[in-house]
Amino acid sequence: MLLNAEELFSERALSFRGSEIRAIQKLVNSPEIVSFVGGMPDERLFPVDRVMEATMFALREYGQESLQYGSTEGLKKLRVLLMDRMANEGVKDISLDNIIISTASQQGLSLAAQVFVNPGDTVIVEDPSYVGGIQAFASMQAKFCPIPLDNDGMQMDILEDRLKELQKAHIRPKLIYTIPNFQNPAGVTMTLERRKKLIELAHTYGLLIVEDDPYGEIRFEGEPIPSLLALGGKDYVIALRTFSKISFPGLRLGWIVAREDVMKKFIVGKQAADLCAPNDAQYLAYEFISRGWLDEYVAVVRREYLKKKNAMISALEQYFPTGTSWTNPQGGLFVWVKVPESIDTAVMLREAISAKVAYVTGIAFYPLRDDNCHMRLNFSAVDPEHITEGIHRLGDLLKSKI
Amino acid sequence: MLLNAEELFSERALSFRGSEIRAIQKLVNSPEIVSFVGGMPDERLFPVDRVMEATMFALREYGQESLQYGSTEGLKKLRVLLMDRMANEGVKDISLDNIIISTASQQGLSLAAQVFVNPGDTVIVEDPSYVGGIQAFASMQAKFCPIPLDNDGMQMDILEDRLKELQKAHIRPKLIYTIPNFQNPAGVTMTLERRKKLIELAHTYGLLIVEDDPYGEIRFEGEPIPSLLALGGKDYVIALRTFSKISFPGLRLGWIVAREDVMKKFIVGKQAADLCAPNDAQYLAYEFISRGWLDEYVAVVRREYLKKKNAMISALEQYFPTGTSWTNPQGGLFVWVKVPESIDTAVMLREAISAKVAYVTGIAFYPLRDDNCHMRLNFSAVDPEHITEGIHRLGDLLKSKI
Repeated sequence: MLLNAEELFSERALSFRGSEIRAIQKLVNSPEIVSFVGGMPDERLFPVDRVMEATMFALREYGQESLQYGSTEGLKKLRVLLMDRMANEGVKDISLDNIIISTASQQGLSLAAQVFVNPGDTVIVEDPSYVGGIQAFASMQAKFCPIPLDNDGMQMDILEDRLKELQKAHIRPKLIYTIPNFQNPAGVTMTLERRKKLIELAHTYGLLIVEDDPYGEIRFEGEPIPSLLALGGKDYVIALRTFSKISFPGLRLGWIVAREDVMKKFIVGKQAADLCAPNDAQYLAYEFISRGWLDEYVAVVRREYLKKKNAMISALEQYFPTGTSWTNPQGGLFVWVKVPESIDTAVMLREAISAKVAYVTGIAFYPLRDDNCHMRLNFSAVDPEHITEGIHRLGDLLKSKI
Repeated sequence: MLLNAEELFSERALSFRGSEIRAIQKLVNSPEIVSFVGGMPDERLFPVDRVMEATMFALREYGQESLQYGSTEGLKKLRVLLMDRMANEGVKDISLDNIIISTASQQGLSLAAQVFVNPGDTVIVEDPSYVGGIQAFASMQAKFCPIPLDNDGMQMDILEDRLKELQKAHIRPKLIYTIPNFQNPAGVTMTLERRKKLIELAHTYGLLIVEDDPYGEIRFEGEPIPSLLALGGKDYVIALRTFSKISFPGLRLGWIVAREDVMKKFIVGKQAADLCAPNDAQYLAYEFISRGWLDEYVAVVRREYLKKKNAMISALEQYFPTGTSWTNPQGGLFVWVKVPESIDTAVMLREAISAKVAYVTGIAFYPLRDDNCHMRLNFSAVDPEHITEGIHRLGDLLKSKI
């Protein structure tokens, strides 16, 4: 008789959530479909020649070491370089003990969930929020307290009310998870005022903030706003950063900044998770950054993504019917569209794919899965002409439904 | 007032175990010390020129794709190649749906722990066992049921007794974790007869076996024994493999073979953990293997590690005092030494480091931390002359204590 593995699964595994994005991506492989699905950088902009040069240099100089195990904390000279980079952004008072290299920022989310979340613990998240963040916390059986967003980011008055209610109920949330810049999926950015308020609330209620900032450097309009880490310091802020959007997701490299007591737990958690981040990739990243090539590449990305974003906003204005609305991000990869409540974007997706255009259904990003009238549109991976064409197709479909 | 982060840590985080190996490694950085500590392959054998050639080819042919996100399951053509490789070892009845690329085999252990272990669940482990395995299961708050080893591997009569006792107590263990070939730390190999018995017990008691086999291909003496996966099939065996010992640990690549229902959970767990394995490394691995270079490299490793192992055994025979004993592995990286019970190897370590030789204290490998009279000696990372010198130093120290 075949073993019934389900009898052996943990309660944790039963609470796992699959990623709708990855499921949808499998449906839209055809080149005829304009896909606004992924959250991927535009690989056509990758400076492959420079990657080859930096890789060759690293292998020639450090080949044996770079192919060997690295330390769990990560390559020291890369951490020094990243620490300096963050100092330039106004992050003070961090030392090498406060920074480690992670297997991209998804691992940072996974470690935060493991280190802080008991089954049933409350985690405050933005509503909507990043699918991978929801997955990481759900996999450790978190209970979500979602706080709605508006154009200025997480709504602090609502957060404060919720924190008061939770305190009355003797519930201490473990973490506040936020993506302050060009939020995924909503594309909005938290204002300076709200950032300050969030840090004040963290102090008042004794909470740690997880600041997930994959897109901050990809600002193509407006003025940068200091990060929560720069404003609030490491005592109350755990910062997650990644190379995935500012350079090459294939490397699986990110970094985590945290206070030392938290970092010690993250390091042991990382040992159990995968021992160390890819080592050859760390040498490559070091060479790529130290030559100034990362900054040059990010400048190209900003310029090209602005064109893409503008193409998308223009097309939305031209082709989308009355009753729809969207965010207009100053950076990042995503536009977030609201459609009339009579339309269920999850139901409409099959029709969209038939019409040769695809998006991510909004429900994927709602921790409580309680909204059906949004869609996330990625512009980074599509060229401007196809953006216009895809939005045209989607607009026609929406018009047929309104 | 500074936030007290300890108030926020999960119970899971409080059960985290640090790695004594990584702690000891930090003490033995001096080149004067002969270090038998690490579990690292000999990087001086790495064919860096071939890695450069394969890397350049991969970047030239697939640069953009290889630097982009990959699928959670891993690069398809690499999975096909590994599937064929396993078929050659006698593994039947697996398809692409049964194999994924992991961020080395440590991630396989982490996922197995997450998918199966509720806090307090029993996991059967070898006594002693791999530190990283103990860490992975401990981090999900497993309770360990350790089964002693002898020269023929896990002792099946004791396992059967324990399974009967557990059954009487209405406890169903979740997993049996074993390293059948050249076990870490003990260096012993499970006999064919015991492998068959283990599979029989898995059937009888409805248990899954986690077969961790990083060293199987590094057999330098004797005849290969079929894997548990080949003998028992995927229904009862989850197999973890890695490139870390047969090639380059810096890449952080391994693979997992499992039945489909289990694999579905592993895939969602991997999404939450790190989305996908390093993608550029997967292209490199594919090119390196498909050129036949992996097999050529493993042949070199077998030949050179045999020399190292022989140097270690000879030196042990020459320099170690009466009352000590050791295993004589037919492959892998480790010799396991027993000293008289009057000696505590954890206490002796400081003296050894003063005498310019280092090892891993045996207690690190005991799930219940109940043995002080063993030490693990790595021979793969040290050259034969230094092995002789280091064993001489350690032998002198031991003689002074007996």
